[in-house]
Amino acid sequence: MALIVQKYGGSSLESAERIRAVAERVVATKQAGNDVVVVCSAMGDTTDELLDLAAQVNPNPPAREMDMLLTAGERISNSLVAMAVAAQGADVQSFTGSQAGVITTERHGNARIIEVTPGRVQEAVDQGKVAIVAGFQGVNRDTKDVTTLGRGGSDTTAVALAAAMKADVCEIYSDVDGVYTADPRIVSDARQLEQLCFEEMLELAASGSKILVLRSVEYARAWNVPMRVRSSYSNDPGTLIAGALEDIPVEEAVLTGVATDESEGKITILGIKDVPGEAAKVFRALADAEINIDMVLQNISSIEDNTTDITFTLPTADGDRALEMLGAMKDAEGWDDIAYNDQVGKVSLVGAGMKSHPGVTADFTEALRDAGINIDMMNTSEIRITAVVRQDDLAEAARALHTKFELGGDEPAIVYAGTGR
Amino acid sequence: MALIVQKYGGSSLESAERIRAVAERVVATKQAGNDVVVVCSAMGDTTDELLDLAAQVNPNPPAREMDMLLTAGERISNSLVAMAVAAQGADVQSFTGSQAGVITTERHGNARIIEVTPGRVQEAVDQGKVAIVAGFQGVNRDTKDVTTLGRGGSDTTAVALAAAMKADVCEIYSDVDGVYTADPRIVSDARQLEQLCFEEMLELAASGSKILVLRSVEYARAWNVPMRVRSSYSNDPGTLIAGALEDIPVEEAVLTGVATDESEGKITILGIKDVPGEAAKVFRALADAEINIDMVLQNISSIEDNTTDITFTLPTADGDRALEMLGAMKDAEGWDDIAYNDQVGKVSLVGAGMKSHPGVTADFTEALRDAGINIDMMNTSEIRITAVVRQDDLAEAARALHTKFELGGDEPAIVYAGTGR
Repeated sequence: MALIVQKYGGSSLESAERIRAVAERVVATKQAGNDVVVVCSAMGDTTDELLDLAAQVNPNPPAREMDMLLTAGERISNSLVAMAVAAQGADVQSFTGSQAGVITTERHGNARIIEVTPGRVQEAVDQGKVAIVAGFQGVNRDTKDVTTLGRGGSDTTAVALAAAMKADVCEIYSDVDGVYTADPRIVSDARQLEQLCFEEMLELAASGSKILVLRSVEYARAWNVPMRVRSSYSNDPGTLIAGALEDIPVEEAVLTGVATDESEGKITILGIKDVPGEAAKVFRALADAEINIDMVLQNISSIEDNTTDITFTLPTADGDRALEMLGAMKDAEGWDDIAYNDQVGKVSLVGAGMKSHPGVTADFTEALRDAGINIDMMNTSEIRITAVVRQDDLAEAARALHTKFELGGDEPAIVYAGTGR
Repeated sequence: MALIVQKYGGSSLESAERIRAVAERVVATKQAGNDVVVVCSAMGDTTDELLDLAAQVNPNPPAREMDMLLTAGERISNSLVAMAVAAQGADVQSFTGSQAGVITTERHGNARIIEVTPGRVQEAVDQGKVAIVAGFQGVNRDTKDVTTLGRGGSDTTAVALAAAMKADVCEIYSDVDGVYTADPRIVSDARQLEQLCFEEMLELAASGSKILVLRSVEYARAWNVPMRVRSSYSNDPGTLIAGALEDIPVEEAVLTGVATDESEGKITILGIKDVPGEAAKVFRALADAEINIDMVLQNISSIEDNTTDITFTLPTADGDRALEMLGAMKDAEGWDDIAYNDQVGKVSLVGAGMKSHPGVTADFTEALRDAGINIDMMNTSEIRITAVVRQDDLAEAARALHTKFELGGDEPAIVYAGTGR
């Protein structure tokens, strides 16, 4: 008997009708002879509605109270799904994050899971019940306060539960039916992937693919929990994410796909002294402000005055904060100027096949050159090449790379209305 | 420094604007030098909306899941009130029923409070914080499951917390500004009462007054917690409910008011054998079905065949169930017939003054006679006289008694749109 953890996103639970459909799938999975644990996000727009109410009573609400508020959303969807499963005649029991033993750090709004002690959930499963667990939430062991896990928290709950319960697979349901070789809204012949390894999915997620949050994939990789991305609207098997990069035989390693990211901007510090420790000052200041920088480029030093330029990318959401902070440092550090460009985009090619194909970087740059696209910055990992280009060129860059590396399918991709996460 | 527990009903919290107004009152109470603990019901129609969703996914939802669902309503209002209080600059912390130590029986949907261990709430208050506690909910100590307290549960939470924390007063806020000598929608010169004792309030609540649920008053009486009924729309001091009947000096004992109740119907069993144990069979069967009967009347036995008639009142909500059950007993017991009348009403006169005025019953019956109203059944307690009359006569009966006993004020009562409980 297999143990399957199924996670349903908000769009899959946006109405009573959708909840009944989810319950049918859950009960069918159970009746097929599996043990089933279900993790639910909040229904459709619930979280946005609660955020809106909060803003009306306090523009800067205490984080602890915000967590108490938002977790109500998952309690509602959770208990409704349990009722719908019961309506189909299956034994069922719902659990809050706390009841399911999701123990977290105390950082409200963005807590990390420390451990999962799913004794009560396991007991329910052992009694033949379907267990329904509220996603996105946990409890701080010391203060007993309710915490939330931040963006994509329900995916992380599902993977962490699957790991703690040694589940055979963690299925992530949304309105997207799998991982594609590119965003089908940009690349019309994008193809659904049958399988990829954890590292490839991590690189895609880090490069702008929104289908899974990085954190849940990191967790799945660390605990070796196979994930399957599926649509709650179809019976398509979706995409399996499993296995380690090093276990892929060279002859089977392929290029996985192209990812794009418009959420980052680029800051350049001009005329910074080219002596040890100067760049470190910049990055320490950014780190202390919890601003995640991504790509970094340092120009060749000017011989005349021994200065250089440093360019890095960061989320545009943090752009103003970073500029303000660096602006305050500028005169004391003797920098010439600080430039900011938020009209950039990142395009990345990902795939285990890169390891065994030394010509990939050359093909990558040639594809962009042939499309008339200028590369602003570039960096690579073992299985990824990323270029920063003008934001206006981003879609064309993705299409050019997708074609160059023959990632497309014979059939055009089905395009869904939204990503619905 | 006084400790004040304030309970706000759903209509007082129906919008962000109303929540901000509640927060202002809470903070003003705190700034006046009091410790404040606030108990919140769910916002406006939240509970009805959740019930509606539940009905759509399962017409007969499991009670445990229903409790998980409904308690989300109080979490939402609770955390929003906490945010609004924080916005006014006060230190604040919210608590679920479980966090506040509200320990209950395991009967989902209608649990009873076993004890309240408000250690965390007390700690917050000792730190100078306003504590916000979700009403209506508790936790079963054995199973750790979330429970709800049934109708009026938030009032009961407030009184139980006030008792456990030895509060000076438990203020119950709604859109009604106090206890009146009669329902102002029926009796136009109904007058707001300044104070009444617990027993008087119990009799009024048991006789159809909807301003406080019986259970919360019983709890307040048992733990001697003064309650004050106030409007969240005004600064009117409202009505104080405090003190024991036996402590009221004879010269201060007055008649409190008139209550009406349209929610009961009347069943008559005709031709029941007038031997010991026959009536007991009827009432045991009703008790086993958890049907609460109220007034009972047994006619004088017929000499010819030694049979009698038994009439009793019961909630019309239980009418069909009771008829079905008694119908099944009829032939075996040899009853002649069973009659049901749901077009009856109860009118009651309540007041400690009754003890020292032996003529009250005579005045009561004369007032109804003069109004041309026939009395169907009647019963009394030490401080109450109740008559069952035709439902069409109920309002006129209330007005006649209110006038006869000179309960009216000089000013007409303010009439609110709804009772908003």
